[in-house]
Amino acid sequence: MNEKFKELKVLLGEISDLHAAAAVLGWDQQTYMPLGGAESRAMQLTTLAKKTHELFISDKIGQLLTDIEAKAGDLDYDSFEASLIRVTRRNYDRLKRLSPKLVAALAKATSLGDIAWRKAREKSDFSIFQPDLEKILDLTIQKAEALGYKERIYDALLYDFEPEMKTAQVEKLFNEMKVELIPLVKAISERQGVLDDSIFNQDFDIDKQWAFGIEVIKRLGFDFKHGRQDCSTHPFTTSFSTNDVRLTTRVYKDQFKVALSGSIHEAGHGMYEQGIDQAFNRTILRGGASTGVHESQSRLWENVVGRSMEFWTFWLPHLKKYFPNQLKDVDVESFYRAINKVSPSLIRVDADEATYNLHIFLRFEIENLMLEHKIKVKELPELWNLKMKEYFGICPTNDAEGVLQDIHWSMGGIGYFPTYSLGNLLSVLFYNRALKDVPEIPGQIKEGNFIPLLNWMREKIYNEGAKYTPDELVKRVTGEPICTKPFLTYVQKKYTDIYGL
Amino acid sequence: MNEKFKELKVLLGEISDLHAAAAVLGWDQQTYMPLGGAESRAMQLTTLAKKTHELFISDKIGQLLTDIEAKAGDLDYDSFEASLIRVTRRNYDRLKRLSPKLVAALAKATSLGDIAWRKAREKSDFSIFQPDLEKILDLTIQKAEALGYKERIYDALLYDFEPEMKTAQVEKLFNEMKVELIPLVKAISERQGVLDDSIFNQDFDIDKQWAFGIEVIKRLGFDFKHGRQDCSTHPFTTSFSTNDVRLTTRVYKDQFKVALSGSIHEAGHGMYEQGIDQAFNRTILRGGASTGVHESQSRLWENVVGRSMEFWTFWLPHLKKYFPNQLKDVDVESFYRAINKVSPSLIRVDADEATYNLHIFLRFEIENLMLEHKIKVKELPELWNLKMKEYFGICPTNDAEGVLQDIHWSMGGIGYFPTYSLGNLLSVLFYNRALKDVPEIPGQIKEGNFIPLLNWMREKIYNEGAKYTPDELVKRVTGEPICTKPFLTYVQKKYTDIYGL
Repeated sequence: MNEKFKELKVLLGEISDLHAAAAVLGWDQQTYMPLGGAESRAMQLTTLAKKTHELFISDKIGQLLTDIEAKAGDLDYDSFEASLIRVTRRNYDRLKRLSPKLVAALAKATSLGDIAWRKAREKSDFSIFQPDLEKILDLTIQKAEALGYKERIYDALLYDFEPEMKTAQVEKLFNEMKVELIPLVKAISERQGVLDDSIFNQDFDIDKQWAFGIEVIKRLGFDFKHGRQDCSTHPFTTSFSTNDVRLTTRVYKDQFKVALSGSIHEAGHGMYEQGIDQAFNRTILRGGASTGVHESQSRLWENVVGRSMEFWTFWLPHLKKYFPNQLKDVDVESFYRAINKVSPSLIRVDADEATYNLHIFLRFEIENLMLEHKIKVKELPELWNLKMKEYFGICPTNDAEGVLQDIHWSMGGIGYFPTYSLGNLLSVLFYNRALKDVPEIPGQIKEGNFIPLLNWMREKIYNEGAKYTPDELVKRVTGEPICTKPFLTYVQKKYTDIYGL
Repeated sequence: MNEKFKELKVLLGEISDLHAAAAVLGWDQQTYMPLGGAESRAMQLTTLAKKTHELFISDKIGQLLTDIEAKAGDLDYDSFEASLIRVTRRNYDRLKRLSPKLVAALAKATSLGDIAWRKAREKSDFSIFQPDLEKILDLTIQKAEALGYKERIYDALLYDFEPEMKTAQVEKLFNEMKVELIPLVKAISERQGVLDDSIFNQDFDIDKQWAFGIEVIKRLGFDFKHGRQDCSTHPFTTSFSTNDVRLTTRVYKDQFKVALSGSIHEAGHGMYEQGIDQAFNRTILRGGASTGVHESQSRLWENVVGRSMEFWTFWLPHLKKYFPNQLKDVDVESFYRAINKVSPSLIRVDADEATYNLHIFLRFEIENLMLEHKIKVKELPELWNLKMKEYFGICPTNDAEGVLQDIHWSMGGIGYFPTYSLGNLLSVLFYNRALKDVPEIPGQIKEGNFIPLLNWMREKIYNEGAKYTPDELVKRVTGEPICTKPFLTYVQKKYTDIYGL
């Protein structure tokens, strides 16, 4: 088996290299590529996707897997070898169902879709993006049908992000959340007056914001020798190995919270990627357990840590050195309340912890309707606005702050959104578990020492890469299955305190 | 034939996409990649090189070529189809001789060599780079032997840069140049006192230098909708299509000439790439006729145009707006003389037009000695310094300003250097020809109108892409073969005037 395993590893290493190459091209497309480069980039990504897919679903890899599996019975389930074989098999069987032609068509449609989405967003005109989204939706449905599903078409797509999780399970969790969150948001809305966040109605120099964000994420533990941060319209994290992890954020002088929360959020993803076992490089195990588990880390660092009183007890004095005029009169108590202000807003990524999940419920419902042919693409802006009214009581005045705000559909990421709310649930589950093991963490955060928390996450989660399904990992780490209670308790307590509910 | 030609074009298009992908990874490696990303990048580039090579030398492409050639007899030599078939055949026969294993080994050695070269250069210690260069040289010799040659091993490598040109021809040209240039440099050296360039011994704000460089190359005709400029240690140009062309430069506050000449030089390459027929995208014809012809354009814009009296007549008043204090007392005559000051210097890329070629002769001679086993890699620093003394009368005090200054060998680019001097010869040949057709060009330059010259170059050279060998192109454009006289006349006249020889 040893020889065959080695041979398989070489082939998978090459496939991993080509995936990484595509990721570099994707990163460049979002950060530095001149507008004119878009069409050739679409072709390059299409070819890379097609060739990589062809190599992966080759009979050679299928045969090697079968041969290796026949003799792998005595391998420890948790071992690198068993995990690599298991996860490769899972992906192989799944992707084998997709023709290279469909993969190439999707890659092309989404690359071109990205261009159209940008244009549409800039002009705030959904009709520019509509034909592209129709094409992408059509191909995505073809993909889901080819992959197959038992209950819901959404299941087939969700699998890409949350292996082995079902749509019904997500719906159950979301329903539990809705029951508590909608009344909570309502109660808070009625007490808007008690919270003053006017300190953020000032200008904050862009370069200084950038420098402060870098200082923060460096101290959290993001390693700039093995990563960097750049600007992009839509913040994201990508990585080409555990040693080359790229974050992006965006900075506006009149929106202080945007850049910092973007930096910390992406650094959460980035530290996850940097913390994966080095031995997993150039294999399918170099990655998070799922998108939701990944999101648990961005949300943990952005919110559970980054909007806590302990965090700002340490950081506010530093921030005041960057912005002495803007912040001279503010104490940590008021700053903490201001940065946690809840206000029903149009934009998901700028939302607070209480309203954030409502944005997700809306998208999740719309995606299901789209996939089940219950709504047409051209009806999306109207439905979006209706649902915004229903959930938030507010309505976008244009497509850019409505249906066009997110990049995901243009990238073919239908099925991705639920992972954000799953991430919120998991962030609190994991944090509570870390506190049980290391009760000193809040005190350490107060002193600017984030490393014990990071180390706990590294050991329990990051290091394991993609060895386990999200369900497996959550059970291993917390001893229980994914559930809503800890998150809801956390949110209830936090906002009851802040708003004196 | 039509169907088979279409099929071939699809396959070559995919190969071209993968080449472009590798170019994006190379660009990122030189501009933004964090240090820690180097090893994984080396693997990614290795895999891309290997896969691309395998696809290109496949029997399928060989068979398609043969089938198509059998029916292509009546195609016009200059047509797109005939040119694509001809150039593909030339490359196919040549690359077929290289095993994917050797190609992968070279890609890996040069990716790792790049890391070692950077480290060595930073510490100014050749011994750090020596083992890598030994490996690269060994593989390069294997490559040359596999490719085959009749007279000189150098011929096999030169072909990559100057298709169908011979080392003996280069030597003859270089000898003709030496006979005139060495005495010229000597005569100038004896009159050092007559020229004052002390205006450049001042500090020039880095951001303003950057902005001025952008203003200049925009006006020359570099299109920022289809390209951009970034920073890198070693300026270079790369492109991923005619619509996505990347330049780099470097800026130092105490070395005004470096950034501007870097920007203009690379913009020359960039405008060439942007000017290639759009129909050549995703084919082997999207590229220059040769590296030397490419270099003719960078040297044309950098020197023949960018260091001319006409150029500075227009630009000096603009430059003064950026640097009113530094330049308040200088007139165009003195500025022109200052920017053309000849001084034997250690660094090739900073050299003036008179001494530049001596740097090339030195490298060309050393490369031949290396390839013919007449010198060992470890002896290079000493030989380098000896030759510097011989040609320039000066000697580097450390490896960074000596043998380690250039990136080329670390990239496996042995055989590349002569193209710079060929470029110098061609820049004057082409410019003189343009003047015959459009005698108004100098007057137009004086008024800041560079487009007529650019359009001439576009029509005669850029647009043709890689359809012709350099010899073919030079004969088509100028009516004569490549020769030294026009360049030598140009240099003699320019410096006789400036130095009053």
